[in-house]
Amino acid sequence: MAANYLNLPKSITWNNGTLTLLDQTQLPIKTVFEEQHHIEQVWDSIKQLKVRGAPAIGVAGAYGLVLSLKDKTHLNSRDLLRTIEKNAAYLDSARPTAVNLKWALTRLVELANSLADRPSAEICDRLEQEAMQIHTEDRQLCRGIGAQGLPLIQPNMGILTHCNAGSLATSELGTATAPMYLAHERGISFKVYADETRPLLQGSRLTSWELQQAGIDVTLLCDNMAAHIMSQGLIDLVIVGTDRVAANGDVANKIGTLGVAILANHFNIPFYVACPYSTIDFATAKGDSIVIEERGETEVTHFGLRRTAPDNIQYRNPAFDVTPHHLVTGIITERGIVQAPFESNLQQLYAA
Amino acid sequence: MAANYLNLPKSITWNNGTLTLLDQTQLPIKTVFEEQHHIEQVWDSIKQLKVRGAPAIGVAGAYGLVLSLKDKTHLNSRDLLRTIEKNAAYLDSARPTAVNLKWALTRLVELANSLADRPSAEICDRLEQEAMQIHTEDRQLCRGIGAQGLPLIQPNMGILTHCNAGSLATSELGTATAPMYLAHERGISFKVYADETRPLLQGSRLTSWELQQAGIDVTLLCDNMAAHIMSQGLIDLVIVGTDRVAANGDVANKIGTLGVAILANHFNIPFYVACPYSTIDFATAKGDSIVIEERGETEVTHFGLRRTAPDNIQYRNPAFDVTPHHLVTGIITERGIVQAPFESNLQQLYAA
Repeated sequence: MAANYLNLPKSITWNNGTLTLLDQTQLPIKTVFEEQHHIEQVWDSIKQLKVRGAPAIGVAGAYGLVLSLKDKTHLNSRDLLRTIEKNAAYLDSARPTAVNLKWALTRLVELANSLADRPSAEICDRLEQEAMQIHTEDRQLCRGIGAQGLPLIQPNMGILTHCNAGSLATSELGTATAPMYLAHERGISFKVYADETRPLLQGSRLTSWELQQAGIDVTLLCDNMAAHIMSQGLIDLVIVGTDRVAANGDVANKIGTLGVAILANHFNIPFYVACPYSTIDFATAKGDSIVIEERGETEVTHFGLRRTAPDNIQYRNPAFDVTPHHLVTGIITERGIVQAPFESNLQQLYAA
Repeated sequence: MAANYLNLPKSITWNNGTLTLLDQTQLPIKTVFEEQHHIEQVWDSIKQLKVRGAPAIGVAGAYGLVLSLKDKTHLNSRDLLRTIEKNAAYLDSARPTAVNLKWALTRLVELANSLADRPSAEICDRLEQEAMQIHTEDRQLCRGIGAQGLPLIQPNMGILTHCNAGSLATSELGTATAPMYLAHERGISFKVYADETRPLLQGSRLTSWELQQAGIDVTLLCDNMAAHIMSQGLIDLVIVGTDRVAANGDVANKIGTLGVAILANHFNIPFYVACPYSTIDFATAKGDSIVIEERGETEVTHFGLRRTAPDNIQYRNPAFDVTPHHLVTGIITERGIVQAPFESNLQQLYAA
C-alpha cells in the first residue's frame, strides 16, 4: 500500500504572529484564506461562521486574543491583564453558546492571571505559546481518534458519513474523518459517501470538498438516497461525529443522524460515532433529556435564495436528533473504542 | 364531526371545449391557470411539466387531442382519422415514457377508427365524450382509493407522506392523499407531515401546497427529520404513492421511500402504499429487477440556482428506490387494501 500525500485544507494557521483563517462561508465555490489583522475581524469571522466547528472556534478564539495583545507589551501588567480579560469577554460574545470558545479563552485568562508578577512581554509570549499548545492538543486529539478508528477501515470498504465532523471543524484530521484520513495516508483504498445534510448542506459544501481536496474517493448523496445506496450493498461502515454523548451512550448529533443509524441497523452495517473523550457528558444521564434546538423557517422553506414552500406553511426544523445507544456499534475516542454496555464502559474509560 | 369544504386545486379543467391547466412549474409561488389554445401549447405544457403525474398527463393529452380537432369537422372522415393519428403521435412525443399518455391517446385513436363510417362532427363529439370519460374514470379511481383507505385515518393521527402522489398528479383526490381528503371532508382532525423530497422538492412545492389549499393541517419537514419526528411519537401512519408494484408486492417509488419504510418498521408505524390497481405489474416478479433511473448532476450539486457542491464532485442521483414487500403493511387500491402474503393476495384481487 503506497502512502498518499495528505492534502488537508488548513482552516486555521498561525505563522510568526500572523493568524489566517479559511473563509468557510465561501466554500466550496471559492477557497479564500483571510489574514486576520485585529480582534474585531476575528470576532466577525467567528460570528459569521467563517470559522466553525467547536474545536476550531476555540483555537481561533485563542489566537484572536493573542493577536489583540500585539501592540500591548508596553502596558504594565495590571493594565495588560485588564485588557486580556476585556478582550476575552468580547471574543466570547461572538458565539456565546460555543463551549470550546469560552474554555480556550478562560484557559488563557487564567494563565495570564497566574503570571501577574511577570513582565508584560513575557505574559504575551506565554499566552502565544499556550494558544499554540491548544492548537497542538486539538491536532493530537484528532490524530488519536484517527489512530483508534483506523483498524475499522478495511480495503475497498464503502463508508457513509453525515454532516461535517471533518478537518474544517477542527485543527487537522477532524473526528469522523480522522480514521479516513489516516487510512488514506496509509494507501488503503476506500470510498466515502457523504450525505448532503439538509437543511444547511454541510455534507455537500464542506465534507465532500475537504475529502476531495485530500484525494479521497468521495460521492455526494441527498440524505434520502442513503437507504437505497445501503440496499445495494455499497456501505460497509458508518462514521459520524457528535455534539454530545450522554452517560448511557445516547448520541446527540446533526439532524438526520438517527435516521442513518436506523438504516445502518436495518442493513446490519456497523454504526460508529467519533469524538474527543471530553464530548462524553456524564452529567447527562440519557439522551432524551437533551433539549433539541429548533431553528428558523427559511432554512426549510427556501432553496438557495428562492422560496420553494408555500407562504405561511407550518414547518419543523430540529437542528439535532438523539440516537439511542442500542443503535451505536461503538464510540471512537482518543482513548479507545467504547462499546456496549456503554454506561459502565464509558465510566471505566473515565476512571482510567 | 363537521364536514369540511374541500378546496382542491384543479390541475385540469375542461369547460365547453376550453382546456385549462394549472401551471405546476410556478407553484407554490404563483397559482397560474393557463388556457390551452392549440395542440402545440398542450405539447409544450406536457413537455415542460406544467402538467405532471401519470394520470394527469393522460387526461391532459386526451383533451389536447380533442382540442386539436376543433376546426377539423369540415374534413372527411378519412382525413380526420389521419389527422387524429398524426396529432396523437405528436402529443405522445412530449413525454414518450409516460405510459398513461400513450394509453389515453391510443384509446381515443382506437375509438375514432371504430367510428370510421360516421360523420366527422360525430367522431369529434364522441372523442370529446371519451376524453371526459377518461377524466371521470380517473376521478372515480382516486375516490375509490380514498374510500378504501379512509378507515385507516383515525382522529388526531399524525400521517407522514413522501413526494407528491396528490391531487396535482391526478384528476381530483390523488392516490396517497385520497384517504386524507376524504377524512378531512368528513371532519376528522389529523396532522400531515410532508417530506420535502430532495432533490426536486415535490413535497415542499406541491404536496404541502395542495394540502394547505384544502385546509388540511400540514407541516413541512426535510427528509432527514422524519426519524426524529417519528421518535417523538408524532407519526401514527405513513401513506405514499408508487410508480410500480411488482407481483410480489415490492414497491418502486420516489427516492427516499425505502428509507421512510425502514424508519416506519423500526418505530412500528403502519406503512401503506396507495395506487390504482393498474399500477400492479404482474409481468415484474420482484422489485429488484426494476431498473432505477439515475438522473443528472445539477439536481444534487446545485441548490436553487447556485452551485453548492465542489466542482467535479462524484454524485449519485437515483430517481427511485424499491421498498421490499416485507416492509409494506398494505397496498390501498380502489378494489381494496391488499396485505401480506402479497403474491397470492394481489392475484386474488386480479382474478376478482
